[in-house]
Parts: sequence; structure tokens; C-alpha cells
Amino acid sequence: MKELKTFFDECCKSVDETLDRLVPSSETEPQRLHEAIRWSLFAGGKRFRPALVLAVGQVFEVGEEKLLKTAAAIEMIHTYSLIHDDLPAMDNDDLRRGRATCHKQFDDATAILAGDVLQALAFQAIAEDENLSAETRVKLVSELARAAGTPTGMAAGQQFDLVAEKKVVSIAELERIHHSKTGAMIKISAVAATIIGGASAKEIEAITDYAAKLGLLFQITDDLLDVTQTTEVLGKTAGKDSAAEKATYPALYGLRQAQNLAEKIRAEANESLSGIDRDTRILRELSDFILNRKM
Amino acid sequence: MKELKTFFDECCKSVDETLDRLVPSSETEPQRLHEAIRWSLFAGGKRFRPALVLAVGQVFEVGEEKLLKTAAAIEMIHTYSLIHDDLPAMDNDDLRRGRATCHKQFDDATAILAGDVLQALAFQAIAEDENLSAETRVKLVSELARAAGTPTGMAAGQQFDLVAEKKVVSIAELERIHHSKTGAMIKISAVAATIIGGASAKEIEAITDYAAKLGLLFQITDDLLDVTQTTEVLGKTAGKDSAAEKATYPALYGLRQAQNLAEKIRAEANESLSGIDRDTRILRELSDFILNRKM
Repeated sequence: MKELKTFFDECCKSVDETLDRLVPSSETEPQRLHEAIRWSLFAGGKRFRPALVLAVGQVFEVGEEKLLKTAAAIEMIHTYSLIHDDLPAMDNDDLRRGRATCHKQFDDATAILAGDVLQALAFQAIAEDENLSAETRVKLVSELARAAGTPTGMAAGQQFDLVAEKKVVSIAELERIHHSKTGAMIKISAVAATIIGGASAKEIEAITDYAAKLGLLFQITDDLLDVTQTTEVLGKTAGKDSAAEKATYPALYGLRQAQNLAEKIRAEANESLSGIDRDTRILRELSDFILNRKM
Repeated sequence: MKELKTFFDECCKSVDETLDRLVPSSETEPQRLHEAIRWSLFAGGKRFRPALVLAVGQVFEVGEEKLLKTAAAIEMIHTYSLIHDDLPAMDNDDLRRGRATCHKQFDDATAILAGDVLQALAFQAIAEDENLSAETRVKLVSELARAAGTPTGMAAGQQFDLVAEKKVVSIAELERIHHSKTGAMIKISAVAATIIGGASAKEIEAITDYAAKLGLLFQITDDLLDVTQTTEVLGKTAGKDSAAEKATYPALYGLRQAQNLAEKIRAEANESLSGIDRDTRILRELSDFILNRKM
């Protein structure tokens, strides 16, 4: 078993190469659009979702060539959502991954279009992936569209989040926000690899359960980092959740309780894997990594 | 052969019913998002692109049940582009199809998300269309993503258009803008029906040629209407192209010459159909209709 760090490094490299092939070059017209897409896509993102695709794929012994375009497509959807979420009309953020957000570096109109195009490119990448059967591609497009869209997907979650700002939110509402806003795309990252790998119904259920817990863990630690880390470390504006009076786990539970919750969820994520009769160590390491992440 | 008016009316009805089934109800949470989507989707659009899908489908004797979800998906992509184009950061328009634009009726953030979600729903609708084989669905997703995206699709065309504002544009540049901005989605409307209908390579070529001409005709008449019609008739702000110093056919050719050009393109569109050994009368009627449209 490779070290997780090595796994992440290799994953970033393969995914970046795939993204580079799937997105028109900066010299291709309209140049400003492709520059803007590449500005955000190659801004040093952690590639957490693609890594999850590859990690689950490894558990089901799927060759990387069958996973990379789907992994890249998921990262494109994720990046489009960051570009749109950062817009002045949404979260109005100037800083992302340590540098200017897309609309600050270019302009609002270009940023809107860059996000729109990334979404189209994502579905195109899967539809044109000749390493997969047509049936598998159709299933992936359907599941990814549901994860990105509505009523339980990422964009719906962003709308829940907007509506929740500056009002008192219950823990149940907070969980619904994150279940859709971050959870859905993390879940599809894991589930996509089970679809490609032809996993059994029981295995898909276990992985879905694991991924739901992992998504929750990711969100709790994201909220914690917003409170405990500096802007410099995060590469995005720290403390902005409380400034915007956003519903977060530390705000609702208190810092210490939120940290305890994160540990409990990590344990539950790993427990979900117990029914799978395969080597799932990499997925346990991944949940440990998320629990302890510093950015 | 049905009258074209009857064809359009029946088409609107079937497409609206399909859209209604594909989009979550206004009561489904997040309600504001679904209300915003439905506000724009059911604003009395002409359903020109879906009508083209059904008309070409009729030429190739394809049952409507195999066409409707694709037609609806294309209308969803078209509607998302209108919602985003109307935003303050883009064309900043308050009026569309005779009523408030999405961001005026709701807010900018909701309008951005409504557009984003419509794009996801469009690809989902095709991927989940059980009337079509997986191979056909994959081909449709690929072609629609290219038509909506970059470097020759609709969003790329919108970027070309933004860059061209307030600068002197050649006729070649104007054609490139429209070829991508409006032409690509009109072309895919016709081509999608040939893919579903299993048309021959020669037939697909002829229909592609026809659709390219039809798209150009649509754009020239659109530019002409902006000059010759009132806001009341158009249901959107008239005269805004010249106010924004946009490159248009009347601006580059003069009104009379632009009208002559439209007649010439209509003749070329109909001529493209001569190689098809099928009843193409509905497509000829459609190009006549576009030439003479008043809104």
C-alpha cells in the first residue's frame, strides 16, 4: 500500500494532466474564457474529490484509465461551483486557493461563463469517455447531474445556504444544507467509482454510507478550519462564516463539541466499511486524513 | 400536413408538459430556486428550438416520445443562457418575454443558481430518457455539451459577444459570434433529431447545412426585429443592441441590405434540403416562418 501522501501526489498529477487535455488551451479562442477557466482549475486545488474517485476505484481494482475522466469531470463541476459561489452576488469573495478569485482576476461576466462552460465540459468528458460502456456513461451523467443539481444536489444546497444566512438555523437544517451543498458531490465521487467498478449492491450501499459520513466530516472540519486557521494557511478568507453569520458546526455546537462530533463521524465512516470484503485501508486513511487536515 | 401554426401550438403543449414533469414543482424545497426556474422556463417562450427538434423528427418519422425529452433539454439549456445573459454582470436586462427577468423577480444569486441547475437538469433528462438506447443518449449528451459549451458553442459565443461590444467588428467576426452564440444550439436542435432518427450521413450533412442557415436567418431577423419592433411587441427591450453599440446585421449592412441577406439565406436553407429524399415541406415552412416573423 502506498503512503497516502504519495497517493495524493500521484493522483493530483494524473488528474491535472487529464484536466489539461479536456479543457481548451489558453491560446484557443475565446482566449479570455479559457484563461479564466484555467486560472481557477489550476489554482492548486486539493483534488480531494478526484482522489476519492481513485481511492474507491483502487478498492474495487479498477484501472486508472477508467476513472480519470470521471474524476476530472467531478473536479470541473466542483470548480464551477467555487467560481459561481465566489461572485459578488453570492459569497462575494476575493481570495480562493491563495489567489484572486476568477471574477477578481477577470470580470464577473467572464466568471459566470467560465463556470457555465466547466459544467458543460464535465458532462462532455464523461459522455465521450471511450474507456467506459455507453450504459456506464449514461448512469454516471445521470448521477453526476443529480449530485450537481436539484432538489438534493449541490446547487440546491447553495440555495438552502443563501436562505439560511442571517437567520437562526436548527441542527437538522444545517445538516440538510451540507448534505446537499458539499455532501452530494463527495458522495458521487465515491459512488461513481463503484458504478465504474461494477460493485455489488451491498458494496455500493456501504460505500454510499461511508461517503455520506466522509462528506459530513469534510464539512465539520471545513467549518472548524474557518475558525481556527488564518487566511494565509487556508488560501481563502478565514473567519468569513461568522462574519456572514452563517450556520456552522462550531457556531451551533461550540468548538470543543464540534471537534468531538468530527471524531465520532470519522469512526462511523470507517465502521461503514466493515461489511466490504476487500482491502479498504486507503479509505480509512482518507477519513483520518480529513479529520486531521490543516487546510 | 398540419398547418405550421397548429404544429407549433401542439409542440408547445407537449414540450411544456415534458418540462413540467422534468423540473421539480414550486412546492419542492428549495422552493425559491424552483419558483425561479419555473418563472423563466414557463414565461411564454416561443419554443423554437424544441419545435425544430420535432419538425426534423417528423421528417425522419421518429415518434414524439423519442424526441420530447431531448427537445425539453435543449429548451432548458436555452433558458439557462437567457437567465445568465440577462444578469447585471452580462447584458443587464430587466425585461424578457414580456415580464421581469429572473434576477429582477428574484435576486442575482438565485438567478445564477437557477441557470446552473437548468443546465444540470438538461443533461439529466437526456441521460435518463428510457425511450432511447444508451448509445444514442451518450451521443446526444456529447453533442449538446459541445453546442452549449466551448470553443464553438453557445457560452463561447457569449464571450465573443462580450469582447466585441463597443469595438468595430468585421462581418467575419460577427458571423463567428452568431455561429457559436445562437447557431450552435439551433444546429444541435436539428442534428439531435437526426441522431435519434438514425438518419444517413448524407441526410445528417444536409440537415446540418439547413440548420446552420436557419440559425443565421434566425439571428439576422432577431437583429432586424430589435430595430424595427417595439418593446411591447418583442416582450424584451427593443433597440438595446444599438444602445449597447453591439455588432448587428443592420448596423453592418444597413436595414435594406440586411433584409435582402435574410431572403437570400432563407433560399439557401431550403436549397440545402434538396438532397433529402423525404417530405421536408415542414422545414421549408419553418424557414419561411422565421423570415417573416414579427417577434
